[in-house]
Amino acid sequence: MEALMSSRPPYHLRPLAITADDAAIEVIDQTRLPHELRTVRLSTVDDVARAIEGMTVRGAPLIGVTAAYGLWLALRGSGTNEVLDRASAKLARTRPTAVNLRWALDQVIAAVLPLPPGARADAARACADRIAAEDVALCAAIGEHGRPLIERAHAAIGKSRPVNVLTHCNAGWLATLEWGTALAPVYKAHAAGIPVHVWVDETRPRNQGAALTAWELGQREVPHTVVADNAGGHLMQRGLVDLCLVGSDRTSASGDVCNKIGTYLKALAARAHDIPFYVGLPGPTIDWTINDGVAEIPIEERDGDEVRRIAGRDQDGIWRAISIMPPGAAVANPAFDVTPAKLVTALVTERGVCPASREGLLGLYPERG
Amino acid sequence: MEALMSSRPPYHLRPLAITADDAAIEVIDQTRLPHELRTVRLSTVDDVARAIEGMTVRGAPLIGVTAAYGLWLALRGSGTNEVLDRASAKLARTRPTAVNLRWALDQVIAAVLPLPPGARADAARACADRIAAEDVALCAAIGEHGRPLIERAHAAIGKSRPVNVLTHCNAGWLATLEWGTALAPVYKAHAAGIPVHVWVDETRPRNQGAALTAWELGQREVPHTVVADNAGGHLMQRGLVDLCLVGSDRTSASGDVCNKIGTYLKALAARAHDIPFYVGLPGPTIDWTINDGVAEIPIEERDGDEVRRIAGRDQDGIWRAISIMPPGAAVANPAFDVTPAKLVTALVTERGVCPASREGLLGLYPERG
Repeated sequence: MEALMSSRPPYHLRPLAITADDAAIEVIDQTRLPHELRTVRLSTVDDVARAIEGMTVRGAPLIGVTAAYGLWLALRGSGTNEVLDRASAKLARTRPTAVNLRWALDQVIAAVLPLPPGARADAARACADRIAAEDVALCAAIGEHGRPLIERAHAAIGKSRPVNVLTHCNAGWLATLEWGTALAPVYKAHAAGIPVHVWVDETRPRNQGAALTAWELGQREVPHTVVADNAGGHLMQRGLVDLCLVGSDRTSASGDVCNKIGTYLKALAARAHDIPFYVGLPGPTIDWTINDGVAEIPIEERDGDEVRRIAGRDQDGIWRAISIMPPGAAVANPAFDVTPAKLVTALVTERGVCPASREGLLGLYPERG
Repeated sequence: MEALMSSRPPYHLRPLAITADDAAIEVIDQTRLPHELRTVRLSTVDDVARAIEGMTVRGAPLIGVTAAYGLWLALRGSGTNEVLDRASAKLARTRPTAVNLRWALDQVIAAVLPLPPGARADAARACADRIAAEDVALCAAIGEHGRPLIERAHAAIGKSRPVNVLTHCNAGWLATLEWGTALAPVYKAHAAGIPVHVWVDETRPRNQGAALTAWELGQREVPHTVVADNAGGHLMQRGLVDLCLVGSDRTSASGDVCNKIGTYLKALAARAHDIPFYVGLPGPTIDWTINDGVAEIPIEERDGDEVRRIAGRDQDGIWRAISIMPPGAAVANPAFDVTPAKLVTALVTERGVCPASREGLLGLYPERG
């Protein structure tokens, strides 16, 4: 089931691919990063469900695409309604709060339901391919719209040194299929020859910055430096950050941004130092039913053991989870926070860059007006 | 050399004590906390130097007192100038940048130099006792001056619930001899029956909050909850913090506060939410030669391995250091940051509470005018 990749992968390493025999999908096991690049072959819907549940794949867009391929794998054996219902229910249960996962499953279900059972597997595969292609195109568009922001920052410093971008958590190609959301402008700028350096917030408690963002930037040879989450204010105060670029798990219709815990502290610091704070997001993460993100977006409280314990590799290369506080210590673990629109310089979407406001968003998405 | 204490220590556990045989000092091994309460007997100046160097004892005031007792231990054998010089040089080398350590050594040297060799050990001991007693009195005074701030916060919320205090790093009794600096008002309020709950920032990269502050609050039965450093902005936004209380490694004559990295981000968030941000500090940490803390205080850049690796206990109780990022990842590790005086609501010193300004400080320390 597992294959060890070469230690120096090709440039276009992607977190999900169809296997060469066209009979399964292969994903990077993100729980092993950054210490080991290992892929897992997923041949059945059970394999896919386990991979999503166990966070072998993570990142909202990637989870959606993976689940869509899961329905393809399920329907290959038999295309009956019973199989479809069972498979989609199983996949939906893996991450109950993942909006994108539900959306992707619904897309596939709508595409295959009108068809006779024998035609459903191929239709599911075609639908999953389309969702994947759309995700790549969407992230590429975010990147193209965001690239000029980095280009202008480079011009503003007289092209005297690389542009220093600060990011939080992981919103890059590992969380999508290619390019990423927040990191897409960085990759596009890097590809265009604009020198860029990324400050990577460690992103406690799950360390997605240290473990995933640093690794994926390294794979694409983008210069970067990891810092403790505590360091960002100091870096900004010393003039070492030119702009911030983060992702969004959910954006209100008024431009408030719900993202990984700690994003808000960086937005406050950026404002104090007049540093642009940009948010890269795909249109589908805008929740048009929410007006006041701070008041209306519930914040998930996750297991305190994420804070109490940290996993990594010891000097002998063995995976260990260690405890860093007194046994039974009381812990709170809010997983996200909300950055009010007023602290966001601009939103970068697949349709363009706009002010973080209802008017700004409606300018890009007039059909929501 | 080592003794295991009972698992439920007496209330007045202190980080340093004279042994019952009056022949040595005994310190809590802070490198083992929070997992193990172990004391180490220090009988010679070499023992003391090793304990300071290896961070068995840490915290500026505690290091100073420990070093002073180190001279006592050295002079017991022989009180010659040669022994005094060698011992003080050895102790000074253990932490070259620790101002308090130098100051304490100078105090003892000045006290014993005029005396004949045979009288020096007793004089050194008396001087160390005096430094220790003064430290306790100084921290107690910070506590007494700061307690009303918590009391008033309790009144302001109609005494409807405990006062929520957010703190960063460790500035409690483990870093001093008793009471602490930033935490002294918390302990005094707790002792006075004012219900108080402390949000403890984990304080990456060295985790002093999770490892030491949570443990020492637990020993004194003060309710507390550990959070990732990223959580503070969210907590303040949701009304869950009534006041912040942090320590200071160095305070400018104008009231700028240099403290553990990450302090500045919390000060910015507190200001955004009109939450009082107090700094507890002993007068000796005011650097009267510095006017602009941001421009003039150099920030120590520490070893990147502090960020790359984390130490703790695995499920079998074995100490392990694990790596959390790609091997060789570039890391920056600024150890402190500077919070400008304008973000500090008030300074709490042993002489009283004052505005964070030159005028405020001179009001309490007129001899510096």
